[in-house]
Parts: sequence; C-alpha cells; structure tokens
Amino acid sequence: MTTGKTGLVVTAHPGDFVWRAGGAIALHAKKGYRMKIVCLSFGERGESQWAWKKGDVSLSEVKAQRREEAERAAETLGAEIEFFDAGDYPLYTTPEMLDRLIDIYRELKPSFVLTHSLEDPYNVDHPEATRFAQEARIIAQAAGHKPNPDLTYNAPPVFLFEPHQPEQCNYKPNLILNIDDVWETKRKAFEILAAQKHLWEYYTRVALNRGMQGGRNSGRAMTYGEAYQRIFPQIVEELA
Amino acid sequence: MTTGKTGLVVTAHPGDFVWRAGGAIALHAKKGYRMKIVCLSFGERGESQWAWKKGDVSLSEVKAQRREEAERAAETLGAEIEFFDAGDYPLYTTPEMLDRLIDIYRELKPSFVLTHSLEDPYNVDHPEATRFAQEARIIAQAAGHKPNPDLTYNAPPVFLFEPHQPEQCNYKPNLILNIDDVWETKRKAFEILAAQKHLWEYYTRVALNRGMQGGRNSGRAMTYGEAYQRIFPQIVEELA
Amino acid sequence: MTTGKTGLVVTAHPGDFVWRAGGAIALHAKKGYRMKIVCLSFGERGESQWAWKKGDVSLSEVKAQRREEAERAAETLGAEIEFFDAGDYPLYTTPEMLDRLIDIYRELKPSFVLTHSLEDPYNVDHPEATRFAQEARIIAQAAGHKPNPDLTYNAPPVFLFEPHQPEQCNYKPNLILNIDDVWETKRKAFEILAAQKHLWEYYTRVALNRGMQGGRNSGRAMTYGEAYQRIFPQIVEELA
Amino acid sequence: MTTGKTGLVVTAHPGDFVWRAGGAIALHAKKGYRMKIVCLSFGERGESQWAWKKGDVSLSEVKAQRREEAERAAETLGAEIEFFDAGDYPLYTTPEMLDRLIDIYRELKPSFVLTHSLEDPYNVDHPEATRFAQEARIIAQAAGHKPNPDLTYNAPPVFLFEPHQPEQCNYKPNLILNIDDVWETKRKAFEILAAQKHLWEYYTRVALNRGMQGGRNSGRAMTYGEAYQRIFPQIVEELA
Amino acid sequence: MTTGKTGLVVTAHPGDFVWRAGGAIALHAKKGYRMKIVCLSFGERGESQWAWKKGDVSLSEVKAQRREEAERAAETLGAEIEFFDAGDYPLYTTPEMLDRLIDIYRELKPSFVLTHSLEDPYNVDHPEATRFAQEARIIAQAAGHKPNPDLTYNAPPVFLFEPHQPEQCNYKPNLILNIDDVWETKRKAFEILAAQKHLWEYYTRVALNRGMQGGRNSGRAMTYGEAYQRIFPQIVEELA
Amino acid sequence: MTTGKTGLVVTAHPGDFVWRAGGAIALHAKKGYRMKIVCLSFGERGESQWAWKKGDVSLSEVKAQRREEAERAAETLGAEIEFFDAGDYPLYTTPEMLDRLIDIYRELKPSFVLTHSLEDPYNVDHPEATRFAQEARIIAQAAGHKPNPDLTYNAPPVFLFEPHQPEQCNYKPNLILNIDDVWETKRKAFEILAAQKHLWEYYTRVALNRGMQGGRNSGRAMTYGEAYQRIFPQIVEELA
Repeated sequence: MTTGKTGLVVTAHPGDFVWRAGGAIALHAKKGYRMKIVCLSFGERGESQWAWKKGDVSLSEVKAQRREEAERAAETLGAEIEFFDAGDYPLYTTPEMLDRLIDIYRELKPSFVLTHSLEDPYNVDHPEATRFAQEARIIAQAAGHKPNPDLTYNAPPVFLFEPHQPEQCNYKPNLILNIDDVWETKRKAFEILAAQKHLWEYYTRVALNRGMQGGRNSGRAMTYGEAYQRIFPQIVEELA
Repeated sequence: MTTGKTGLVVTAHPGDFVWRAGGAIALHAKKGYRMKIVCLSFGERGESQWAWKKGDVSLSEVKAQRREEAERAAETLGAEIEFFDAGDYPLYTTPEMLDRLIDIYRELKPSFVLTHSLEDPYNVDHPEATRFAQEARIIAQAAGHKPNPDLTYNAPPVFLFEPHQPEQCNYKPNLILNIDDVWETKRKAFEILAAQKHLWEYYTRVALNRGMQGGRNSGRAMTYGEAYQRIFPQIVEELA
Repeated sequence: MTTGKTGLVVTAHPGDFVWRAGGAIALHAKKGYRMKIVCLSFGERGESQWAWKKGDVSLSEVKAQRREEAERAAETLGAEIEFFDAGDYPLYTTPEMLDRLIDIYRELKPSFVLTHSLEDPYNVDHPEATRFAQEARIIAQAAGHKPNPDLTYNAPPVFLFEPHQPEQCNYKPNLILNIDDVWETKRKAFEILAAQKHLWEYYTRVALNRGMQGGRNSGRAMTYGEAYQRIFPQIVEELA
Repeated sequence: MTTGKTGLVVTAHPGDFVWRAGGAIALHAKKGYRMKIVCLSFGERGESQWAWKKGDVSLSEVKAQRREEAERAAETLGAEIEFFDAGDYPLYTTPEMLDRLIDIYRELKPSFVLTHSLEDPYNVDHPEATRFAQEARIIAQAAGHKPNPDLTYNAPPVFLFEPHQPEQCNYKPNLILNIDDVWETKRKAFEILAAQKHLWEYYTRVALNRGMQGGRNSGRAMTYGEAYQRIFPQIVEELA
Repeated sequence: MTTGKTGLVVTAHPGDFVWRAGGAIALHAKKGYRMKIVCLSFGERGESQWAWKKGDVSLSEVKAQRREEAERAAETLGAEIEFFDAGDYPLYTTPEMLDRLIDIYRELKPSFVLTHSLEDPYNVDHPEATRFAQEARIIAQAAGHKPNPDLTYNAPPVFLFEPHQPEQCNYKPNLILNIDDVWETKRKAFEILAAQKHLWEYYTRVALNRGMQGGRNSGRAMTYGEAYQRIFPQIVEELA
Repeated sequence: MTTGKTGLVVTAHPGDFVWRAGGAIALHAKKGYRMKIVCLSFGERGESQWAWKKGDVSLSEVKAQRREEAERAAETLGAEIEFFDAGDYPLYTTPEMLDRLIDIYRELKPSFVLTHSLEDPYNVDHPEATRFAQEARIIAQAAGHKPNPDLTYNAPPVFLFEPHQPEQCNYKPNLILNIDDVWETKRKAFEILAAQKHLWEYYTRVALNRGMQGGRNSGRAMTYGEAYQRIFPQIVEELA
C-alpha cells in the first residue's frame, strides 16, 4: 500500500531519528508514506563513546559501524536513509549539502518535515540541523533557484521532535502522536542501538508518559505517544 | 443535517462572537453542529457608545437593544445564545453563573470551546471571560461536583479567537480556519451591528489577510480566514 | 506656568512614588503639569518597620505618621496627593475606590499614567495597584459608566516605573527619562523618608546608572535617569 | 536527630505532595528537618473519582477517606500535616486561612517552601495554592501584621515542584534533587493512594527520568530525581 | 527643504522597503530628511516568481529588471538606493559589504535605522539582514575601526518594520507611525511592483488596520499607519 | 592553599572579566582555586577609545597596551590569562581557537565556567564569546574528539555574568555571589583600567546594588554582590 505521500526527517545523528521520531517514521511508513531520513552525520565523534572507549579504533571504522547500525534502524522503521557526512561535534554543512537537501525537498514534496528543536543548550549540532532543514525548505520555494517553470512545491509543515531535556530547550509540544500501532517496531529499532541500552528504557518511559498525556488531553485511550512542536499555523476546514 | 456534535462559544460581549468567531460559528452550524454561544454581558456599558451618546436612555433600554441585536446575529450565524447578564466594564461572574456554565459543558459535551485571548491590556472583561470559561471546563471534570456516576465528560480543546490588537495581547495564532464557505453569512452578521460600521471593514480586512496567510501556509487557495490559538496539545493519529 | 496638562500616578505605598517616580513627578510639575498622586495605602503595615520595632504604637498612629511624610514628599515634588486607605500587605480595593479612580481619570484627562510593574514576586500590593490603575483607565472609557454625552476622555499612555529588582519582575525598561533638572528635588524627597536612609543611596545609585545608560543610548550627556516601561504602542508623526 | 531546621509544603490536594514533593519531604525529614505540609483541600471533588463513581457517598465521607489517606502518606514521609479545608474545584481561600498560614510561616521560619507551579492550564486550584503560599510568605514579613518587636523572620526561598505536564505549564526546572536515599519511602507513599495506581508508574517514570537528567547534568551517579524551579535568586559564597 | 537629518533603511529585498517601510521613507523624505536605502539583494531568485515562470530568462536579466523596478520605487518614495548584490535565498554578506555599510553609517550619521524583524521562520534572508544592519551599526562605533580622531558617530535608534506574519515572527510593534500625509506616494510605489498585485491590497489593508489601531491608541484621527518595533530604550525629556 | 579545583572564564574583551566577573575570580582564587581567564581579544578596536583618540597609534601598539593592562588586572585578581587574539568588533573565532579551548576544558576540568549573556543587542562580540565557550564545553565531551580512553571530563555548570544593561539583554540573574571578602581586590583591578574611570563608579554602584539585593533575598548581611545567571539545572542533595 502506498499513498503517494512522503515524509522527510532531518536529523543530526542516527540516535535522534530512532529515539525522537521512530514512532512517526514507522507509523507513516505503515500508512503507506514514503519516508526518507536525511541523517547529517554518523554521530561518530559525539555519540559513539563505547567505540572510542575501546581505543585503537579509527574515525572511519566508527563511521562505518554507525552507518550500518543506522541503516538497520531505518530499515526496521520502514524508511530510506541518506547520509550527508557533515561531521558531528561540530556538524558543518556546506553549500553542496544545502543544494542536495533543496533537491530532496523538491523531489519528495513531503507532506511534513520532522527535525530537532529550535534550541538545545546541551548540543550544538541539533539546532544547526534544524536551521539547515528550515533554510533548505525555504529556498526550495525560490523560483530562481535552479529555475524550472514546471516545478510545483509547497513548503511543508515542520514538526520538531522532542529533545532530551525538553524544558531546558524551551521546547513546548503542541501535538502528541499516538504511536500504539507501531510501538513494537520503534522498540525494535531502539535495540539496534546496542551500546545505548540505558536510553532504551529512558525513551520507553518518555513514550509511556507522552502516551498518558495524550490520553488525558484527548479522552481517548492510548499507551505510547511521541511529542511534537508544530511551528507554522495549521490550516483547517473544521475545528477539533 | 445534524452531526450530533456541538461547539461552545464563551464571549464577554456580543460584538466578540460576531467579529472574532462568526466564521467558526456559521461554518460548524452549516456542518450540522449544534452551536451555542454563552454571552456573558450585553456590552451595555462599554460597547454601546452610540446609544449613550444620544443621552436620555436607561441601562435596561440599552441592554434590551443589544440583546435583540445579539440574538439576531446569533440566529444569522445559526447558533443558540444564552445571556448571563454579568455586566460589563467590569464583568463580574458569580458562583451561580459558574455552576450554570459547568452544567452547559456537561450537557453539551462540546467538541471544542471558543473564547478570548489569555491577555488583553485594552480590555478587562476579555481575559476574565477566558478565565471563567476555563474554570468551568475544568470543574465540569470533577466527579464530586454534582456527582453523577453516569456522567461522561471530557474537557474539550480550547481555541482562542483573535483580539483586536493581537500582538499587544501576546496572542500567537497557530491555526487558521478557512471560512470561505460562510463568509457571506459572517458579513451579514456584521451588518446587524449597525452602529459599529467602521468595524465591518476592519474585520473584513482581518478576514482577508488571515485568508491570504492561510493560503501561503497551506499552498491551498482560500480567501477568508479566522485565526485561532489552540492552547492544549492536539492528539493525532497522523501528521499533516 | 501651567500647561493645562496633567499627569496621574497610582502607587501602592508612599515610598513607591518617591523612589520610583519622583523624578517624573517633579519634572512634569516644573514643566507646568498638574501632577496628582493616588496613593492606595500608607504603607502602614509593610513599609514602616522602624515604627513597629519601637513597639507600643497603634495602626492609626503609624498611618498618621506615614501620611504626614507622604504629604510632605508630594509637596516637595510639586504634586497633589489623595489617599485611598486601601490597606497594605495585603491591599484590598473596593468598588467605591474603583469608582473614585474612574472619576479621577475622567476629571484629570491625564497625558500619562505612572504605575507599578506588571509582576513583582516580592510584593503582592504592587501588581494589584497596577491592575487597579489599568481597570479604572479602561472603564473610564465606557460610555455607559455614569453616562454623560459631553464627556471626552481618551485612555492615556501608561508607563510602568522601576521595581526594586527589575529582572525578577520581568520588567524591561524601554524609556529613560532625563531627570537632571529635578534631581535635587527628588533627592530632597528621599530625605523626607527619614527611616529608610539605606534606600536613599540605593536609589541614588539607580538614578546614576540609569542616567549613564540614557547617555549611552542617546549620545547626549545626562547624569540622572528614571526608567519606564511603556505598555501601549506609541503613536508618532516622526521617528527618532 | 533534629537540625532545628524546618521545611514547609503548601499543596492544593493530597496527591500533590506525594507525587511531586514526596522525595524532598522524606529526604529532609530523614536529615532531621521538621517538615510540615499545609494541604489546602482533601481533593474531595476533583481527585476522588473512584469514590464518586461508586455513587451513594457523601461529600463528608469522601473528605474523611481522603484525609485518612493523606495523613498516612504524610506520616510515611515523616511530615506533619494540617488541612485548611478550603474546598477543591474550585479552591477558595479566606482571610482566616491567610492569617493562619502567615502564623505558620512565622512560627516555622522555614528554610524553604515547596509549592505548585505558577501556571497550570489544566487545574485552577494549583496556581491558586501557589498564589496563596506566596502572599502569606510576603505578608509574614510585614512588621505591622500582628506587630511583635521580637519577631525575626526572613522570607524563605520558594521551590516549585513539577506539575503533571511541565511544558504546558511553562514550568522550567532549574534544580534537580537527588532522592535516591528516600526513593523507597516515596514509593511507599504512592501506594497509599490506592485508587490512583496508574499514577504510581507514571511518577516512578518521572523520577527515573529526572534522575537520569540529574546524572547527566552533574556527572555524578544518581537514579531518582525530583525537579524544582527556584523562583528567587540564590545567594551564595561560592560557585558550583 | 532639507533638515540636514538622514534616515537609513537596510532591507534584504526590494519589496521589503516598499511594503514595510515605504510610508516612513516617503514621510521623512517629505520632511526634508536625506533617506537612503541599502538593498542587499535584488530579490532575484526568491521574489521574482513571475519572471522565472516565463522560463528562458537569465539571472542577470531578472536582476536588471528588479533593479530598475526598485530604483523607480525608491525614487517615487524620495530616497537614494544602493544595492549590495549579496544574493537572495540565501543572502550572503561579505566582510567588504560590512565595511561598506559601516562607512555608510559613519557618513550618514542617521537619525534612525529601519530594518527587518529579529526573527522570521518564513524567510532566512530577513533576519540575516537585521543581523548585518546591527553588526555594522555597532562596529561603526569602534574607535579602532578605520581610526579617525575627528569622527563623531552615535549609534542611532533601530526600528524594525513589520514582517508578513507578525505574530509568527514574535514581532510586537510598540510604535505606529501616522503615514496619512504620504499614503498616496506609498501606494504609487506599490504599483511599481506590477507583478505582485495581490500584495497591493494586502498591504493596503495592513496600513488601514494599523491606522485604526493608531487612532484607538492615541485618540487622534488617522487613517493609514505603519508599525514599528523599537529595540533600544527611548531617551526623553518629557513623557507622553 | 590550593583546592585542586579550577574555574574558567571566557570573555570577549579585557574589561569584561574585570567589571563583570572580577569578584568571582578573586574570591575563588583566594579560596585556592586555579582560575584561568581566556580573553578572546584585547578589546583593541572597540574598547580603547582613549588610545585611538590620541591619533597616530598603530593597532599593534594598542593591543600591546591593552595586553599589559589585562595581564596586570588578571594578576591582581589572582588568575592566569591566555589571549586568543581573535580580534574585536567583530570577533572571529577559528577552528584552531576552538580546538585550543577544548583542550583547556579537558585539561582544567573546571568546576564552573563564567561567560557573557546569551544576548546583547549592544555588542556583537559578547554573545559570540558565549556561543564559542558553550561549543567548546560540549565538544570537549565528545569521545571521538582527539580520542583518549583515559580522559574523564564532565561538562561544568555555566554562569553568565552581568552585561552592561541587563534587561535589554533579556538577562535574568538567578544567583548573587557575595564578594565582600574580595571587594578591595576587585576595585584595585578596576583602577588598572585607567582610561575607563567613569566605569569604576558605575560598576561599584552595580556591586553595591547587587549586594543589597543579595541581603534582601537571603536575610544575611552583605555589601557587595556579583550577579550570575545559571543556565543548566543545579543538582543538589539538599534544598536551601
């Protein structure tokens, strides 16, 4: 089943799309969306402590390990993944990467984009990924960028997924996605990130607590939730 | 056509439901919702300048005039209206009024509530109406308030309609409702408020500009919009 | 010299108009404005420690002492003063007081109103005074309040004077008034508040530092300043 | 072991001191603080669904049940408890209650006060409890309130405990308390609230996630945390 | 008539100075100010859809078209214009451009600077222009930048003009300029931007609604207004 | 006496560590901390007006003068100082500087870091210094940055010192450090900055007013204070 619809995810590191957006990815993939993850780095320097602690390992080995892991996680969730190899801690984007991401927006014409919070005092790569995702989303609208009179493209809504410490990032969720139908898949993707076992439970608890909040806000039963912050107004034909 | 669904509107004065929420009221009425307006005052002291400027008029005459006008406007929009006669400038709510509004919430089980912005430095009655609408919405959930084991009630989402000077009220719309289908009806309700002719054009311009913003945010054609600020997280089964 | 113009000051306690707005009062009095202070309490319970520490003193004695002091300070600054005797810690306003303040607004038609900050976590009376000053300012516009077809009244701009710990009150000054011409007068008024000698120096330092900030922001020499936060948009015919 | 120190907790309902502040209460009790809880209501109408759902129960029966439960929970945590019986949904405080709370502040001279967040759009009683706790804290400083020349009292620091949905309450924790030493006690207190079993797990997850955040922020091992928001500047003799 | 005074406008694209600041430019030009616009790009890629939609057009052709249009609009408003050709979507400023803008500040010694809002989630070029205008304004003060002992320069006040969707940009106007005297001129400049006819009406409505807000805030009649956000404190010798 | 503890200070210009953090530096040096200042520029262009006003002076002469002054001030305060020579107005950091600062974090393992406010509309170098200090603090944690399995490093708490106009920088202090014990030393460091005599008194007044605020917030006597804004949650074993 495909819907012809697509969703785009732009993350700084592999863990991010698993912990923070794994439910949305799996859910929309299941609904027939083509889901594509742009993963800007392999998290090779800042999120691979276990590899470096062993010592005697090269940067390219760590990158290869993490790429393999990220590819398996993406596959588990039902998504394509493309790496930009922008480095991490710090992540540096180039004009070529910007150009490539603009092309992806125009090709995918996504129904939505998922990315990081606007601020994160614990992590310099996260807001940089958000800034980059927004810049490409906007430039993709510019008729004079690689002009093509036949192009139709509308900048899609942006949803920010939940950072590790939401309040410290001035992150305020205004949407909770029910991910009950794909929870097992999300959890399976957690378990691919074998070295971060302590985070499996952390983000399981986050999902359960967002689920309970979702239930209280809607009056409808739900167990697992994923929080998002929509940053552009929603346009509707009916309230509620 | 009825949907069995209902919507509740709590406003301080009659003009408010016309200028600010007239589109949502007419639209949902047209869709088959039972729409009910709780109008806390008649706007008799603060929004009836033309009547007082004539001189030699009593408070009850002004109230009667404005009630009649408000009833016609509500009827035009397709809504029921109930007045609480709480006075205006300032508006004082009583425990009895609170009790009545709680009953209304429980009886209507509305799919949504529309009310004023959280702040308004130009108007003391508006945030008081909001506070009152929220208080009743919450207490309606308390099992020990007029206990009834059969009661089912979920606190509905709240949407704040647009104040006269949004930025001064720290009002940030996050939803634009397309009201093209009912614009003529909303405009007709404007014209019942015969003494505020200058506001007819003002709020027509507001609707057109919100409409253009709606079009730009969605990529879908629309002409007239009404802005709302949702204040509780939205719970969804699918993004976009 | 009179200008026919007036200025209104609404404060919770006597010290407030001296420390926070004494410069503006003296300056505008000197320029020929009729300046009127509405002092809601005598600061009898919460700002008269020295009196109570002596023991064996009655509430009415403390009130009389502080009234006398406040009257001398007002006179020094060139202002009228009216006490509402609303009590302090906590300050309770009544409908009669509200009615009286509305009358004052309508009679004075002030060019500006000075009052407290919107928030003050150290003091419950201050934001209550602000709320009360704003409520009366708004109701004075209501044509149906004591209707009088001949009344002309425009709600004046409101300037919030500086609280004791500005940042803790989320107070952000956007205007600095040069009070060099009346500094000696303001200081003289300080010295009437004999029991709060430690605050003489504190608020002299505040005036000097606001003065230096004023100089840096304007490029014009000034020594003493008073900070204000304007809360409604300024309407102008020319920028700068 | 007693330290001569005390801590004061002001909550709207019994559940609040258990879920939100149970760790701080138990921890400081264990350290020898006299801990006192002022519980403004019994949560009889809004937080006793299970009782009302049975039907055929009176308000006083529900209050008695909940009082008994709250007393056991307080005892488990090592604290005294005093009920103000201010009602719930809505909670109404009286001048007599204010007077009583001021006396408690002056008698206890607490080293800290724990209370609710400043805002809570889901609950009208919570911010009312906070407002009331702050008002009494401030008035207790007023020398003219029940004057007593021998009184020494300094307004204590205030720490806001965590609401149910922190981000929706604009709550930003700036302190995490390590409650590992008393976790078992806090959990035992949870289990006294037999009818709210679903919240046992919810708040266990909150404690674990705050614990992990505490560990990441400090670099020191900890498992269970309780989040607080300090609202007055901390005065220190050394950083870090 | 010249006053010897000048005003500086820094915009990202040509449309910006017309829609957003055209009134202020024309008004101050009429008052005898030398008005200078620094237009960082020609809006060639992002704001020239109609040109690109025709196809078969080169970037330099589009730039030439838009330059011509912008020059005519500036002339209509009574201003000089200088282009920096920094590109658009995205706009990249260079050290040479910074150097040039610093020289302009020092030469003009403007009484005020007009530029974009601090944030704009719809447009990456706008906040970049603001950042750049602010950076040059500050560096122009540095005595060691192209040192010249005779230089006198005071950093001027900055006024942010209104973005397309003010609330989404966290833009809060605190000043409304009455542009009645130059409305016809501003409208004439609109009509030079022939391809953006839909915006003529949009920004006419914005001007009318800001005008009505200006009238309500001041009690003085006015029809057309332009909103600004002042970002440094105003230094005054008299209130109101 | 040494404690084995260290503190790190990252400032844009020499004056900054003296006016804003001189108390903390001297106090912790006195307590036996190794205190290290990283001073990114010499303030040669933007904060050396007196030198440039004389004319006929070279950039390297100004830098040498200011280096000498800064070294004496650091020595007076009891700190080491390292200059990055990143230029000022504007300050540009390089990857090499980032690398060096990361090394310093890892070598020092500081108990705290002091740096500028997050925003400063008057100064582009200040927030850039803050951003740079934060980036290095975070990358120092990345195991893959110069991997070393033996490295132990925890990112230290960050305290923002007070900018010149706190409210304009959206700076909200949440900590006041008592600097009575080292006031004379801090003042002596002021006097090394001979050309900025007007700031000696300004910052003496700031210290006295922060001191009085510290006394009021704590109930403990203190005369001189330095304000800080902590930006990560504090992790504690006891409240108050």
